[in-house]
Amino acid sequence: MLTNNNKPHFRKDPVSGTWVIVSAERGDRPSAWINEREEDGINKCPFCPGNEKQTPPEVYSLRRNESMPNSPGWSIRVVPNKFPALKNFGPIEYSDTNLFESFSGEGFHEVIIETPYHDKRLVDLEIENIRKIFQVYKERIVNLKKSKQVQYVLVFKNQGKSAGASIPHAHSQVIATPILPKQIEDEVSGMENYFEETKRCVLCDMMKEEFKNSSRLVTSNNDFCVLEPFASRFPFETWIVPLKHQPFFEDIKEDEIFNLSRIFTATLKKIDKILSKPAYNFVIHTSPLRLKRKATFHWHIELIPKVTHVAGFERGAGFFINPVLPEKAAAMLKED
Amino acid sequence: MLTNNNKPHFRKDPVSGTWVIVSAERGDRPSAWINEREEDGINKCPFCPGNEKQTPPEVYSLRRNESMPNSPGWSIRVVPNKFPALKNFGPIEYSDTNLFESFSGEGFHEVIIETPYHDKRLVDLEIENIRKIFQVYKERIVNLKKSKQVQYVLVFKNQGKSAGASIPHAHSQVIATPILPKQIEDEVSGMENYFEETKRCVLCDMMKEEFKNSSRLVTSNNDFCVLEPFASRFPFETWIVPLKHQPFFEDIKEDEIFNLSRIFTATLKKIDKILSKPAYNFVIHTSPLRLKRKATFHWHIELIPKVTHVAGFERGAGFFINPVLPEKAAAMLKED
Repeated sequence: MLTNNNKPHFRKDPVSGTWVIVSAERGDRPSAWINEREEDGINKCPFCPGNEKQTPPEVYSLRRNESMPNSPGWSIRVVPNKFPALKNFGPIEYSDTNLFESFSGEGFHEVIIETPYHDKRLVDLEIENIRKIFQVYKERIVNLKKSKQVQYVLVFKNQGKSAGASIPHAHSQVIATPILPKQIEDEVSGMENYFEETKRCVLCDMMKEEFKNSSRLVTSNNDFCVLEPFASRFPFETWIVPLKHQPFFEDIKEDEIFNLSRIFTATLKKIDKILSKPAYNFVIHTSPLRLKRKATFHWHIELIPKVTHVAGFERGAGFFINPVLPEKAAAMLKED
Repeated sequence: MLTNNNKPHFRKDPVSGTWVIVSAERGDRPSAWINEREEDGINKCPFCPGNEKQTPPEVYSLRRNESMPNSPGWSIRVVPNKFPALKNFGPIEYSDTNLFESFSGEGFHEVIIETPYHDKRLVDLEIENIRKIFQVYKERIVNLKKSKQVQYVLVFKNQGKSAGASIPHAHSQVIATPILPKQIEDEVSGMENYFEETKRCVLCDMMKEEFKNSSRLVTSNNDFCVLEPFASRFPFETWIVPLKHQPFFEDIKEDEIFNLSRIFTATLKKIDKILSKPAYNFVIHTSPLRLKRKATFHWHIELIPKVTHVAGFERGAGFFINPVLPEKAAAMLKED
């Protein structure tokens, strides 16, 4: 056993081999981990200007030249998560009884406060703001990758309580882990298998097909396309994919960020309208730092509205049932 | 493409290789797939006695001798799901463009109505009723396995709206599929790997350890133990495991069913008390019909309360964060 089980740590399920983060520092009382909390007003919101002292000191911000760190004057602010799922790297402690493998939960967990305005949602922001948010994502990934122990940096957003957001003020999150997330691992091995057979990238080939047969292609611009993936797990699951083969999101260029911001905002607005401001998650799937075989990853964003409850078939067996045809969702997203 | 996309069908994600069921027959309107529906009163509940005509004709029931099928007098009633995720087997239609693989969604989807009483939850039933429900599960698995195309029969329950139950009247479900669910596949390969290394069953070994060090063992009787798994993905995730190595749930014997019903009911009551009647799912993980290598599966029940919302880290990357130590959950479940 690790010396302190209350610190965040990784545990491996001896049956399925799945890694889980156990992060029990927030306390033992159910009120600490049941996700329902009352909405705090602006006065108490830790993400509002004037309340900067309620968060850990900022690690990055975009702010007016004359303004001081940890004071108002910022447009985007990055702070360590006050209740991190992982703790900053120190010496890693391993425990392995052959059956019960675990190690200390080293990593980084940051919060990106997307706007100083308490009541603005991401979709309400100007494209110029969205552009800056993507630039901050890029900056944080580049920065966190410098740590040698980091294997993966995941940028994601929870919008709305039922998608896991515990604070309503618009924010996204970054988690840097020493372990590859399961779905990234599955995509990597899928891409590697396809590459070994064909010497081509599966996502490049998939886009080619989608451009030929437009029934799942929602829209595109010079650098990106938006599509409802063939085997969407969730209704209106939507991918935003760079047209050119690019392994790393963090290699994105200035003009590409601009085109991404435009197509991303338009897609969010469309989903907001069709599904009546749904809760949603999005996640940037960028390449792992190191790949085993020659294939390279193709980065993309997965945007997943939350319109249905996940039931036993999904939660208990990992099998997804999607009640909406991706072709139908694409048609609705294409309508004016 | 398949000839009719509106029929349930399986699709394989070309990137990750994950199979998904697309089942869009319930209609195109958002109201048809958004999970929020008003609670129907007893008069309109399709699962209440007197309303038997509102479901497809029953395929099995336990009922008073003199009573007729599809009329009142039953204590447990099994009917095909009116909105099945899969359709009964016919000729299977394949479509494979190398990139977009799909086939028609053949299988069975049944509903087990657990009690004639509209307001009773599973946890409120007598042990004798629970015993009969497990017997019906066994009967349905044995029956559905007879179909040659069936690869797996999954029994599961959604309790509460937020765990995916769309009808409040107590019921569980059975889905028989021609494909192995992802989590079962992961457990099978984990068990096979462990067996190749050690010539032993990983779940048998795990229980031995848990009996030595009781911090995650909640309780046990002659045939079963209840434990919080070492790498629990969810707060209060609870497994009920037969002490003897048994691959198939459906091989369970009369006296074992009795002991399972006792320990299962006691566990449900405990969780209901500690977590204030939470929504939950449970799933029976039984052995696939055919295994590739010599190892055999060890069946068990996974009971997963729904106390937190699944967020982007889980939904978008498949990485679970559990805010409650399994050892703490076990201690709470052991308290009187």
